[in-house]
Amino acid sequence: MKKILIIGCGLLGSSLVRRISKKKIAKKIFIYEKSKSNISKIKRLKLPGTLVKSLKDGVVNSDLVIFCTPMSEYKKLIIKINNFISSKTIITDIGSSKFESSKIIKRFLKRGIYWIQCHPITGSEVSGPEHGKENMFKDKWCILIRDERTNSKHLKFLNTFWKKIGSKTVIMNREKHDKIFSITSHLPHLVAYNLVKSAQDFEKKQKYDLIKYSAGGLRDFSRIAASNEIMWRDIFFDNKINVSKAIDMFIKNLNSFKKDINSKNSKSIIKKLIQTKKVRSKILKLKQDTNKPDFGRN
Amino acid sequence: MKKILIIGCGLLGSSLVRRISKKKIAKKIFIYEKSKSNISKIKRLKLPGTLVKSLKDGVVNSDLVIFCTPMSEYKKLIIKINNFISSKTIITDIGSSKFESSKIIKRFLKRGIYWIQCHPITGSEVSGPEHGKENMFKDKWCILIRDERTNSKHLKFLNTFWKKIGSKTVIMNREKHDKIFSITSHLPHLVAYNLVKSAQDFEKKQKYDLIKYSAGGLRDFSRIAASNEIMWRDIFFDNKINVSKAIDMFIKNLNSFKKDINSKNSKSIIKKLIQTKKVRSKILKLKQDTNKPDFGRN
Repeated sequence: MKKILIIGCGLLGSSLVRRISKKKIAKKIFIYEKSKSNISKIKRLKLPGTLVKSLKDGVVNSDLVIFCTPMSEYKKLIIKINNFISSKTIITDIGSSKFESSKIIKRFLKRGIYWIQCHPITGSEVSGPEHGKENMFKDKWCILIRDERTNSKHLKFLNTFWKKIGSKTVIMNREKHDKIFSITSHLPHLVAYNLVKSAQDFEKKQKYDLIKYSAGGLRDFSRIAASNEIMWRDIFFDNKINVSKAIDMFIKNLNSFKKDINSKNSKSIIKKLIQTKKVRSKILKLKQDTNKPDFGRN
Repeated sequence: MKKILIIGCGLLGSSLVRRISKKKIAKKIFIYEKSKSNISKIKRLKLPGTLVKSLKDGVVNSDLVIFCTPMSEYKKLIIKINNFISSKTIITDIGSSKFESSKIIKRFLKRGIYWIQCHPITGSEVSGPEHGKENMFKDKWCILIRDERTNSKHLKFLNTFWKKIGSKTVIMNREKHDKIFSITSHLPHLVAYNLVKSAQDFEKKQKYDLIKYSAGGLRDFSRIAASNEIMWRDIFFDNKINVSKAIDMFIKNLNSFKKDINSKNSKSIIKKLIQTKKVRSKILKLKQDTNKPDFGRN
């Protein structure tokens, strides 16, 4: 590949820049970034890409353009790049939800331009190019979205791209993607935010200093609840139908558990607790987490 | 101290044995354990304590007896030790909730015998003496419970004991303890169990293989949801009044968040997400968790 443009050089954008350069996937990497603070960090870090001041300089003649911004930025950017993008350039993104964003793309992107949505399953609670890592995508799943308009040549091209990056790839449709990640990612984040909020509400009401006792469980949730707020607002909004259903299902389980506790239904509780334990073994077997107790923290 | 008896030598009991021996806190450590599997592990591990076959052999002449069993075992054990315990022996425990267990102690323990409840804030998702560690309690909080019947000499004795173990100690009443830990520990565990259960329910209903995509958030919860089921049933039952209230408060927050998502109330969502983020910084400042991104896992 001759030229890749990364739009938005935060945690994941900067990780892509590092990896593309390391693996020599493109001859030239261009970076378009609007945040002044990120721009100075990129310069200080000497990231192996060329910062462009205008989108046009980055887009023209690019083989691949990768949107790595929050999803709420897509519309504005699409309207701009419509002015100079050619059908030789393929576009993709790394957004964590696909429903609303696909509607924006369909509605605003110029006809004849191809965009295949992707979603690498990686990230962190920290943001910004200084936290990016060359191996961020290594051995992680990357989902490629296929729909009735997907050009199979382009899909193959992107599949090869992510494999070169080091990811394991899987192709699925948008509906399935959004359903799966409403459960495995969006609900857990939402739950973490609300659990931490409940602790804050309680602390305010009771005037107890309780965060210092967070090692009993709360601290784990606080990590996820520290994730980037703009990115997560966009995800919750994009996938609101599935996320709402997931919340309802979860609340139903909570209420049933509460009933078991209050009636001291030992049989039901033990059955549930043993059942959920099995998921951890499955996750470890699939190498989706470290097998060290307590994440190897202590 | 001449003699300490550890009743129940699992993760935490065995960690105490290791630490007491290392720091030479007692001349003699006795271990009473009823599980055959644990007994053979203790022998294989050559833990620095003497296994006793009868409770009597362990209790008689002990300066300190520490209950490290699930709380549902207390009643049976108390009735047994009443036959040979003297007022020279102090009893304590390491249970994570104090309300119901204190009622059992009050109701069944022989008059004139002193029991001061404790709660070291530590643990892991793995169980058994093979996972115990000498530094399990080091720099962790240990709560000591004081009530109107507490003998201050005994409280001082236990405070010194936990400090020798390496813990930071704090004294509070039972009500405050159970309220604080309903939020910082019991609710997080309950939420983790139910989140994983919701994922399992969804997987069954949709026939999607979703656990393999758990790296987006679910895997963190699966660790806590793998914790010992007997211990956690006992905690939920013991602290059911506070835990029920915590569930209700949490569900209220979830419903409010759902409303924000469905009405795309950006201002409200962003305010909440920024607010909860602050707790993570506070936890890191208090050194209650590793400051490495993603717990330093990758």
